[in-house]
Amino acid sequence: MRIADAETALGPDRLRGELARSAFQFRLFAEAVEEGSWLGASIDHARADAVPAPRPDLRRMLVPVGVVAVFGASNFPFAFGVPGGDVAAALAAGCPVVVKAHPAHPELSERCARIVRTAATSFGLPADVLRILHGRDAGTALVVHPLVRAVGFTGSAAGGRALHDLAKSRPQPVPFYGELGSLNPVVVTPAAARERGEDIARGLTASANLGVGQFCVKPGLVLVPAGSAIAARMAELVRAVPSGTMLTDGIRTAFDDGVAARAALPGVTVAATGEPAGDRTAAASLLTAPASLLHDSAAAELLLDECFGPTTVLVPYADEAELFGVLDVLPGSLTGTVHTGDDDPVGVEAGRRLAERAGRIVWNGYPTGVAVSWAQQHGGPYPSSTEPATTSVGVTAMARFLRPIVHQDSPPGLLPAPLREDNPWGVPRRVDGVLRLG
Amino acid sequence: MRIADAETALGPDRLRGELARSAFQFRLFAEAVEEGSWLGASIDHARADAVPAPRPDLRRMLVPVGVVAVFGASNFPFAFGVPGGDVAAALAAGCPVVVKAHPAHPELSERCARIVRTAATSFGLPADVLRILHGRDAGTALVVHPLVRAVGFTGSAAGGRALHDLAKSRPQPVPFYGELGSLNPVVVTPAAARERGEDIARGLTASANLGVGQFCVKPGLVLVPAGSAIAARMAELVRAVPSGTMLTDGIRTAFDDGVAARAALPGVTVAATGEPAGDRTAAASLLTAPASLLHDSAAAELLLDECFGPTTVLVPYADEAELFGVLDVLPGSLTGTVHTGDDDPVGVEAGRRLAERAGRIVWNGYPTGVAVSWAQQHGGPYPSSTEPATTSVGVTAMARFLRPIVHQDSPPGLLPAPLREDNPWGVPRRVDGVLRLG
Repeated sequence: MRIADAETALGPDRLRGELARSAFQFRLFAEAVEEGSWLGASIDHARADAVPAPRPDLRRMLVPVGVVAVFGASNFPFAFGVPGGDVAAALAAGCPVVVKAHPAHPELSERCARIVRTAATSFGLPADVLRILHGRDAGTALVVHPLVRAVGFTGSAAGGRALHDLAKSRPQPVPFYGELGSLNPVVVTPAAARERGEDIARGLTASANLGVGQFCVKPGLVLVPAGSAIAARMAELVRAVPSGTMLTDGIRTAFDDGVAARAALPGVTVAATGEPAGDRTAAASLLTAPASLLHDSAAAELLLDECFGPTTVLVPYADEAELFGVLDVLPGSLTGTVHTGDDDPVGVEAGRRLAERAGRIVWNGYPTGVAVSWAQQHGGPYPSSTEPATTSVGVTAMARFLRPIVHQDSPPGLLPAPLREDNPWGVPRRVDGVLRLG
Repeated sequence: MRIADAETALGPDRLRGELARSAFQFRLFAEAVEEGSWLGASIDHARADAVPAPRPDLRRMLVPVGVVAVFGASNFPFAFGVPGGDVAAALAAGCPVVVKAHPAHPELSERCARIVRTAATSFGLPADVLRILHGRDAGTALVVHPLVRAVGFTGSAAGGRALHDLAKSRPQPVPFYGELGSLNPVVVTPAAARERGEDIARGLTASANLGVGQFCVKPGLVLVPAGSAIAARMAELVRAVPSGTMLTDGIRTAFDDGVAARAALPGVTVAATGEPAGDRTAAASLLTAPASLLHDSAAAELLLDECFGPTTVLVPYADEAELFGVLDVLPGSLTGTVHTGDDDPVGVEAGRRLAERAGRIVWNGYPTGVAVSWAQQHGGPYPSSTEPATTSVGVTAMARFLRPIVHQDSPPGLLPAPLREDNPWGVPRRVDGVLRLG
């Protein structure tokens, strides 16, 4: 914990919570492994009278893809680091993992790797189910290594896209599960603004500045009705936000530059800044941009791109046409949030449009806080994920690291346990098209 | 049927069977759509006391990805063409489809498209759930079109790889589900050769020459015990194979060139040729190559690459070490086949090694004949599939064209039917981690 705090400045409370989350994640995957649905076991018995042609005995299940490479994130040294979600999902799927440690916390990564390796041996697994590498060159070599069969990545759009392109240009391309940034738009309908304006202003300001704004689900763009009190109230609240130490000096510099570039766009105003930045800390800010600016391609490129850190762009909209016009140009995001009234047609339509562009739709809440559970989805259209059909949080993340094999007319004695006629492990299976619980 | 035969020369019997298969495929997907598992519905109720943190209500299901582009194959004008597997799977998933017609059968493609469009309108869908394009430029434009969200492709390695690279270099990369060729290795163990040599020789020769060898699962490489009678018997049988008309003149020329290039490799011998080729037909052939040649990278590049048409490379192996050595250098394939004796350790080990390189393991049978069913898997490691975690035949093919969305704390009235508390459609769901049948 001392090392973690020294390397990340995230503070012991947050780090303790994150560690608990990481440990829980391993336990939840262990439960899922025992439950057995992840195997996707499916048996079609031979049928001489099948339509349109006789069919052989076919028994299908998922198997591990092989060695998985994982690039840990800067902002979650535990939950998206060496003992993080991608690693836990890959190990749960039966794949050995090689982690490229994030340069922001090399010592913590080493310590975590040692703990995971020791844990592996204590359960009779080889320690080398997890290995760790450092440095950019090692990372590049890892992505093109012939034994690597899949890559998990959480980080910047530029770095992630370069590794994605490398993974796809290999002689044998491999899946690249990259989380490259997310705007996480929020819509506040006129009805919601009237009914819960103060709550929403407080909630959004807290969500945007949690952990010095260094969450992948930080709300980056907030659409509010023009003339509502929310804008002024959020500005007031942001002025009281203390400056904070960011993960690295490089991240803070990129953040300061990102805010300055956005503020310099014609039409963008700085509605508020928080406590002034110190030598090593970053100041929170709230920017305001006219909706029309999001239809200007040069400005939109900046405004619709994630700015990692404690800043949010507020966009007042005059009417539904202006609101929906903006929703239709938004990039893919991990989340889309709607604050809506009861039976509010604006909220319904906003939710529908956000669902085309996000993996998680949050109703009357805030995107920060990503529960680890069976139903969770963390990954939306590009750039929030390079593979939006998969998730990096939640039990179904295991699917990233599995592939199906079907055994045709196998001698019964050679079948893996989940496919034997008597189902010795009692796993859920589909038999001749009918799902059975086990 | 007249147009189909004129454009493909596949003959009315084969074409009638293929059409029945295509129609069956649509009906099977319709059953699967009604069964509802494909929705992946999963509900985690809110829990204030959840570990490690309180969790909101999360309800997850799969939704269509959007417009799907499909490049039909030359060799199955129905089953992998306009009314083919990728199209049926995409429509079943709820996605509109744009088909790039194969240049080998443009008129048939148009006719089929008209039938599918008419069928769509007769069920109240817009005719434009399926559209069709012709020509290479249209195909390229399709892959980079911003509205296209996934691409299905069955065809050559060169063409497929170029389109794959295009799909992955888009500003917003999209999944490319490509079947680019498959060697489909076959292992005959010494015990199987002794016990069933004659049957195996007949079965393999028939499988390799079915439809003038124009099946994606044609056995392209057969490993037999050195000195077994199988080699001589297969040569005898191949000599009696009639020459056949291939799909196009271009395909026949590529086949003739491919056989000649392989035969010219030092060490490769032509064990047999079938009825001599006519002006427009291709002759069957059986080549023999020493196992050692597969460890020579230049020769292996040719011998381990699919040669589309009626030819097979026979590789005699002296012992297990030589057999397993070859298995370890094989590329990814759709199928791997083992002919084995009872309790035959060579067969067990061959099956294990083939399972690392194939999506379907065929025991004591032949790879041709791909049943359309729930448990089928058609897709193995590259180049047989660019996405080996998915299939292009069988019910689970729908997964290619779906992505998950989770609704967090949604107003109950806004939830899609499969996620409502009372489960009005009665679909299988996971509720708080527990699978329920509906």
